[in-house]
Amino acid sequence: MLFLDAGSSSFSGSLSLEEKRLFQYIDEHQDEFVQNLAEWVAVESDSIQPQLRGEVTRMMKIAAARLQDLGAKTTLVDIGVQQLPDGQNISLPPVILAKLGEDPLKPTVCFYGHVDVMPAKIEDGWKTRPYILTEIDGNFYGRGTTDNKGPVLAWINALSTYINLNIDLPVNIKFLIEGMEESGSNGLEELIQKEKDCFFSNVDYIVISDNLWLTTKKPALTYGTRGNACFSVEVSGGEKDLHSGGVGGIINEPMSDLIALLDSLVNSSGCILIPGIYDDVIPLTEEEMKQYEQIEFDLQEYKANIGVKKILYDTKEEIFSHLWRLPSLSIHGIEGAFYEPGIKTVIPSRVTGKFSIRQVPHMDLSKVEHQVKEYLENVFSKRKSPNKLMVSMQMGAMPWVANIDDPQYEAAKKAIKRVFNQDPDMIRDGSTIPIARMFQDITEKSVLMFPLGAADDGEHSQKEKISRSNYINGTKVFASFLLEISKLHKELQKASNLKTVT
Amino acid sequence: MLFLDAGSSSFSGSLSLEEKRLFQYIDEHQDEFVQNLAEWVAVESDSIQPQLRGEVTRMMKIAAARLQDLGAKTTLVDIGVQQLPDGQNISLPPVILAKLGEDPLKPTVCFYGHVDVMPAKIEDGWKTRPYILTEIDGNFYGRGTTDNKGPVLAWINALSTYINLNIDLPVNIKFLIEGMEESGSNGLEELIQKEKDCFFSNVDYIVISDNLWLTTKKPALTYGTRGNACFSVEVSGGEKDLHSGGVGGIINEPMSDLIALLDSLVNSSGCILIPGIYDDVIPLTEEEMKQYEQIEFDLQEYKANIGVKKILYDTKEEIFSHLWRLPSLSIHGIEGAFYEPGIKTVIPSRVTGKFSIRQVPHMDLSKVEHQVKEYLENVFSKRKSPNKLMVSMQMGAMPWVANIDDPQYEAAKKAIKRVFNQDPDMIRDGSTIPIARMFQDITEKSVLMFPLGAADDGEHSQKEKISRSNYINGTKVFASFLLEISKLHKELQKASNLKTVT
Repeated sequence: MLFLDAGSSSFSGSLSLEEKRLFQYIDEHQDEFVQNLAEWVAVESDSIQPQLRGEVTRMMKIAAARLQDLGAKTTLVDIGVQQLPDGQNISLPPVILAKLGEDPLKPTVCFYGHVDVMPAKIEDGWKTRPYILTEIDGNFYGRGTTDNKGPVLAWINALSTYINLNIDLPVNIKFLIEGMEESGSNGLEELIQKEKDCFFSNVDYIVISDNLWLTTKKPALTYGTRGNACFSVEVSGGEKDLHSGGVGGIINEPMSDLIALLDSLVNSSGCILIPGIYDDVIPLTEEEMKQYEQIEFDLQEYKANIGVKKILYDTKEEIFSHLWRLPSLSIHGIEGAFYEPGIKTVIPSRVTGKFSIRQVPHMDLSKVEHQVKEYLENVFSKRKSPNKLMVSMQMGAMPWVANIDDPQYEAAKKAIKRVFNQDPDMIRDGSTIPIARMFQDITEKSVLMFPLGAADDGEHSQKEKISRSNYINGTKVFASFLLEISKLHKELQKASNLKTVT
Repeated sequence: MLFLDAGSSSFSGSLSLEEKRLFQYIDEHQDEFVQNLAEWVAVESDSIQPQLRGEVTRMMKIAAARLQDLGAKTTLVDIGVQQLPDGQNISLPPVILAKLGEDPLKPTVCFYGHVDVMPAKIEDGWKTRPYILTEIDGNFYGRGTTDNKGPVLAWINALSTYINLNIDLPVNIKFLIEGMEESGSNGLEELIQKEKDCFFSNVDYIVISDNLWLTTKKPALTYGTRGNACFSVEVSGGEKDLHSGGVGGIINEPMSDLIALLDSLVNSSGCILIPGIYDDVIPLTEEEMKQYEQIEFDLQEYKANIGVKKILYDTKEEIFSHLWRLPSLSIHGIEGAFYEPGIKTVIPSRVTGKFSIRQVPHMDLSKVEHQVKEYLENVFSKRKSPNKLMVSMQMGAMPWVANIDDPQYEAAKKAIKRVFNQDPDMIRDGSTIPIARMFQDITEKSVLMFPLGAADDGEHSQKEKISRSNYINGTKVFASFLLEISKLHKELQKASNLKTVT
């Protein structure tokens, strides 16, 4: 029964003996791979809430031990401390650097993943317990299943398959696995910078599998992401919370000020109202429009996946351009106000609104920060409130675009075709993988975003899942990719050598 | 040392022997009274959070046992169940009805109090543990110290003083003590209605001590309160929370809709923007203005007490009229959005704003409800959002005004003068004691609001306290009030009998 579920992939063309053996092994060891996922999901490695930091560190150690079992030379790198808003310092979880194979004749692929997760509580509306892997109708529900523990394990599964079958790995493998991605990858940039000429010196390709397909059925490769600038806007009044009966009507309530500030950010059509914010966004090219036309996209299915009845745009071209090529602003919540069920007639003394702007090329992060601060300070000053305003950018991550002619994009297309018998959609992603841009800028290597999860995986939601099919076939795609990139790399080297000789 | 703290009251005129004995006993038994307060504060009888309902019921039993010890005939009346927003039914805590003395020649005073409290967590910013009574510089900090466990105990202390000194109680006493005041006094109206011709039939005066003085040093009597209409405004979009990267820019986010709705309610000067809301507010009379002029009020001290540097008005007349005679609107918070420290780039699927309007005579509750709903629906329809809006009034309590010529106001003034050697401020209260209006309307008896706590007691805040002086001298004032009301009542009866004879 297990085999039927995930075995639905139809292999394209005639498989080599190696591929046959690899794919058969993967099918036959599904239960073991699922058990590994259950064990990883069971660790509440939430990097947002400081009190769970110990669990993140424990998760890093579990992942490191797994890589060591594969024979990888594994290091847990201390990346220092994090200063919390209250001034307290807490340790950052270590980053894993690992390598498997050092054959100078083989290309070296570095896989990036993260094993920290977003917060999840059963009270948030989960139908299953978020840290207990639960299979329902071929889907594994649980926090981290798709973002990003499942994909990290799929890569590990692919390698363990080679090793257990005694098939020579066609590439050298490196791993960089972190535990602070959901909090903004603290300390990572410095580490990559530091390792640029050491760990990364002989890396040829960097693969990230930390996003989703565009649809539920068709695989995709991603060549761009939006950036993200997270802001906090704090309004503080008196020294203590007050009672709305006691002072309601005679003071400027911080909450009213904050609500007005947040309401000034975006209109009902999703248009950002901060002056100048769209200035550096370059218009969509005709070539991009053509690319968008080629993508298979079912609007009804898309709406069903995200669980929304109506969206702001009707055509896929408009939708893609607003998700990939235009900035957006979302208001996430308020800290310090009453948030529980029921009634509390409080006038909170200090409230902090949280919102973020997804930026696109060629927006400049520090310019965005300046525009936001200037605008909010201006809106606030017009209210003539005696309360105190403090706007700060808590996290800033830049957008990213890759060169889709890089050989690893070609290799990934071939691997997908072999396992799924179809070409992937070439897409961008509206969300942010700060490390894609970071890796590209610092290491100057080719970066590929190679998603395993389907569009309805609900990353960050109360329904996060990965399907058995995507998890197991994803493992096969990764296994196949290693063969393909090795072949392409050799051909390229030959061509390059010939050219040199000629 | 204990005696010095609370003994600072200077008794006015020559005290009767009885009064001397009563006051001396109260001074000498301070420690015992404080210990009782500590025991009551230790019970987390939070009536807002359903999971703490058991603690509220436990508190009711503790209070009932205390009254029984005094010799009062005490009944715990079952008032049924509460339906929670999720449809679940939970028991309401019982209401205490108790009586002590049934002499037909004496007047009967019914004391109302509540022993439930607002939520309090150390994480909210308390400097002391909210459920451990902590004395600092002559103040007892803790949830419920002033609202309303301290005043309920002061009344009990006064009675136990009479009883322990074997002094005949000058009045018959009744008690109504409830455990759902902070949640809207569920079930109480029905109970008072039912007991109108039984428990309340021979009651002459109803005393409530559940508000604060206007200042920190001068006692006050309260003859009016504002009402309160608590609203929830829910905006719901898709089925699940979404990721701002994944869909930011292409959907109408429920949070943006809610923020716009909340921002439409009140302007930066505290003026409510709902059309027609001020229509039924009658203009301030010249007599009221004169009354306000007579009240001692130190603006600097007031601001220091509420912990606010600047308020909207400069004169005491403007301040009193905005607190007592004009409605106000406060936004308390949002349920369903991100509220924790840190970053969560979520687009919440269902968010509920909480706000309340303090109404004044002669605003009509159902008219206010209609105005609010119609206005918000109108604001929302202009946004052309596909999200769903649901506005509901979760609680409605009417404003109240008493006749300050009632004899018990006179008796209370005399008792205050004897203990504090000054006349009380005659004030209204900006907050809501729904039962004042309820008692008055249903029982048609005279209602007196007789505050014990000082202006800086911080009810509902993270600094809630009652001073030792107010707690202990308040006990004396209550003891003295019983003598005074008995005397006045007898005089009135004599006059009335004479009148009848003539």
